[in-house]
Amino acid sequence: MSENHCIDTALIEEATALIDLLRATQLTVVTAESCTGGLIAAALSYAPSASECLHGGFVVYTKDHKTIALGVSRDLLERSGSVNAEVASELARGALQRSAADVALSVTGVLGPDPDEDGNPPGQVYFGVLRRGRTPRVVQHHFKIGDPHQARRAVVLRAMALVRETAHS
Amino acid sequence: MSENHCIDTALIEEATALIDLLRATQLTVVTAESCTGGLIAAALSYAPSASECLHGGFVVYTKDHKTIALGVSRDLLERSGSVNAEVASELARGALQRSAADVALSVTGVLGPDPDEDGNPPGQVYFGVLRRGRTPRVVQHHFKIGDPHQARRAVVLRAMALVRETAHS
Repeated sequence: MSENHCIDTALIEEATALIDLLRATQLTVVTAESCTGGLIAAALSYAPSASECLHGGFVVYTKDHKTIALGVSRDLLERSGSVNAEVASELARGALQRSAADVALSVTGVLGPDPDEDGNPPGQVYFGVLRRGRTPRVVQHHFKIGDPHQARRAVVLRAMALVRETAHS
Repeated sequence: MSENHCIDTALIEEATALIDLLRATQLTVVTAESCTGGLIAAALSYAPSASECLHGGFVVYTKDHKTIALGVSRDLLERSGSVNAEVASELARGALQRSAADVALSVTGVLGPDPDEDGNPPGQVYFGVLRRGRTPRVVQHHFKIGDPHQARRAVVLRAMALVRETAHS
């Protein structure tokens, strides 16, 4: 079943392990999700004790909402589109400013099957991780786009891995 | 497979039908999700053309984040807890104020297996729907809590039905 679904048992185990790590390191997290549409926060919310570490998140699907909800520069979005390192960084910064969490994780990308309105290819995804008081880290990854569940699942797993690395750093 | 997973093919079909209805009625939507953790927005984002109607959403898992991100009264949360009609209404209002969408849908409840910190029983869920310029509608429903995927799936379906009713009203 794990081939055809996004939030499967293995993903919930990963979420639970991450929440346990966050509890142990006394860190809390907030998300800012574009292409995943809320799936990272949703996956984390399956973990027992999630509410101790997951403050919540922002789903910023349109450019307008990236600006209105998280303060991403309209000029940046018009000039460079939504899928780039600077937007990933701004999303994380905006989410951290609008929460009491210690770490913000952002994701912006194209999960296809078609390119986005700016011509970014399916599979291109940028992640931003920002721990309060530090500088943002941005990671780019190209995902294989086939089954939509699998693509989303891979992005959620990569996002969790980045938060894990941040908790250890 | 639909017994064991939340976002299955049937749910994506429902999401697609709702997005098509929203396009036809020229309405856009924003979510404010507590217990579903972002799953409603994520399910909608699977629909082709979702970005034409789904502006995004707010995942407000903790009381703190309900106040910081959406302006829900701290006094109300401390006095009455998170799971009641007034909070559902405030969440929808807060989301609408912080987006350019036409309709806000909010969900707050307990998806178990245990009661929440205020003693609300698992399965108790309040939905708020607010169309710009109108008064909020709040609906309470008690869901059967067994398999966590099924409970979430039922809440997501009910939420979609409420937005559909609002689009028709």
